Amino acid sequence: MVTKIAVDAMGGDFAPQAAVEGAVAAYREDGTVVVLVGHQEAIGVEFRRLGIDDRAIEVIHTDEAVAMNEPAITPIRKKRRASVRLCAELVRDGVAQAMVTAGNTGAAMASAMLVMKTLPGVDRPALAAVLPTSTGRRTVLLDVGANISTKSHNLRQFAVMGHLLAHEVLAVESPRIGLMSVGEEEGKGTQQTREVFKVLEATGLNFIGNVEGSDVYSGELDVIVCDGFVGNVLLKTSESLAGMVGGMVREAVAGSWRSRLGAFLVLPALETVRRRIDPEEYGAAPLLGVQGGCLIGHGSSSAHGVRNAIRRAVEFSQADVVGKIGGKVAIMHEQEEIVLGRADSDSPTSMADGPVAEE
Amino acid sequence: MVTKIAVDAMGGDFAPQAAVEGAVAAYREDGTVVVLVGHQEAIGVEFRRLGIDDRAIEVIHTDEAVAMNEPAITPIRKKRRASVRLCAELVRDGVAQAMVTAGNTGAAMASAMLVMKTLPGVDRPALAAVLPTSTGRRTVLLDVGANISTKSHNLRQFAVMGHLLAHEVLAVESPRIGLMSVGEEEGKGTQQTREVFKVLEATGLNFIGNVEGSDVYSGELDVIVCDGFVGNVLLKTSESLAGMVGGMVREAVAGSWRSRLGAFLVLPALETVRRRIDPEEYGAAPLLGVQGGCLIGHGSSSAHGVRNAIRRAVEFSQADVVGKIGGKVAIMHEQEEIVLGRADSDSPTSMADGPVAEE
Repeated sequence: MVTKIAVDAMGGDFAPQAAVEGAVAAYREDGTVVVLVGHQEAIGVEFRRLGIDDRAIEVIHTDEAVAMNEPAITPIRKKRRASVRLCAELVRDGVAQAMVTAGNTGAAMASAMLVMKTLPGVDRPALAAVLPTSTGRRTVLLDVGANISTKSHNLRQFAVMGHLLAHEVLAVESPRIGLMSVGEEEGKGTQQTREVFKVLEATGLNFIGNVEGSDVYSGELDVIVCDGFVGNVLLKTSESLAGMVGGMVREAVAGSWRSRLGAFLVLPALETVRRRIDPEEYGAAPLLGVQGGCLIGHGSSSAHGVRNAIRRAVEFSQADVVGKIGGKVAIMHEQEEIVLGRADSDSPTSMADGPVAEE
Repeated sequence: MVTKIAVDAMGGDFAPQAAVEGAVAAYREDGTVVVLVGHQEAIGVEFRRLGIDDRAIEVIHTDEAVAMNEPAITPIRKKRRASVRLCAELVRDGVAQAMVTAGNTGAAMASAMLVMKTLPGVDRPALAAVLPTSTGRRTVLLDVGANISTKSHNLRQFAVMGHLLAHEVLAVESPRIGLMSVGEEEGKGTQQTREVFKVLEATGLNFIGNVEGSDVYSGELDVIVCDGFVGNVLLKTSESLAGMVGGMVREAVAGSWRSRLGAFLVLPALETVRRRIDPEEYGAAPLLGVQGGCLIGHGSSSAHGVRNAIRRAVEFSQADVVGKIGGKVAIMHEQEEIVLGRADSDSPTSMADGPVAEE
């Protein structure tokens, strides 16, 4: 079966230009079959700018879109033809195998939950960033912003999904899982991290305990679990710091002929570093825990970032991440619930206590 | 009056070597008057290694110290002669004008609160990191780990203290203050950030609203307020990322003759960048809100880091930060309390609900 990716043409700071150009690049460079969802006229303008035949890429027209700053939940319920929601419907109906959006994270999360539904055993999906590390090994950090406030069982589910992503997709034999806190000992952290520490110890996962910010890029962990507030701050701070360092290096080497010559010589080496840490090179984070592929890119994604996000969506679909995680997550949760005698539960689509609506 | 700095010789991962060597460097290079507090014999061994006369630097002997992993509150109450606590007593008694420790943060915080006491109008002190940014301007981030959980009025006090540090010491006319959250709009964030947003709006400070991780190193803010959990994760993640990038650059440029020659040429330029972002170059974060100078360095501080921490302590003392903040913080808080009709209050030295004991 051909893998078809639904691309939200109206999502992101530079939509529709970046989204359309990214989709066209995926089609031209990789031969990926994409379907663009958004305003037909606006998309047509980009097609002409890029010199691509209208008939080469399928377009599904809609007038409606969710703006970057809009609160997510109301528009998704009311705007039944919002581009991001239509993308989710294409995945639900099997027309597309995964969707990509660089738009409003909350709207993407709400669409995925409302339309695709969560996997059995998952109360809340989590956005999983796959980070580069010092050792070359990748570390899955979740949640990075789908949920602003979480309960202990949500974090336990994030750990299970992170474990399955690392094991099934990144092929890690026994993923090492850490809980983000402010000290390594069990007693460190907030009331919630202390509670989650005990919950994770009881899971049978390879839980190695509390970890700190200093462990994020060390390459010693396969999965780091945190709430979406901390994960979002951490990820955006990292991007901010990388940007500052890049700018400082450019400024410093421009200062003398000696360093300008040196910079010319080290450029190819520095370019490999930039590629390894630039989030645009990875492209997008998968939303884990919904019944379909949903990859969410940075709001500021360029065409290059969108093309890479589409590559991640193809990989995500072809690796059958949803099937692999879905088949096991319910079993793992059932086992844990027996162990833990868990009683508390969220209605999977209730989106209560705000997080979806807030982000 | 001569500025004398009390240095905790037993605090930090590399104590007493790094602490003693840092103190000796401050004495030799800057002529700073220091008093080392710790085990006399261990300190003497270092003095001989460094070839310094025993009589050149004052030593106050104690057998007791708090280990890096020890929970803080019990030892400080029980270990009445713990080196970090004696340092706080020297400051309280006016023997030293400020103290420096690279040891257990919780123990330093507890000692400062117990011995020096908090400033009138301050319920909890905050550890303030002074960060480099893209524009060269510095941004004060607080709290970075003195308090793990905070109430809204604690965060308001952090904003007031951050304002005063930026205004009185960094000479910023009207410091721009941001609240760390996950979106810029007022409604974004957790229940607490939404509450604190309203509280900060009512302060009369130059509160510009919610900020995100992407704003930390942008140089567009003078003060960023967050709880100690988020601040600690953010700061340690930044150090982890900077370390990873440094390692990647070294590895990448070692790959070919071309890039090794280039690296040799750009080295001086890259060194200036490293200095601007290396936390050891700054040395230590001031604990704001106690009645005395208390500078807390990274646990992994080298001798170079300790020497720089001592420089910060001298500056902190000579700029009379405690006097400048202390004189105004009570007035600002009183004004706000009238505005807000605040009723809730922590006992300044109660150290209840854990944070001091936990970190």
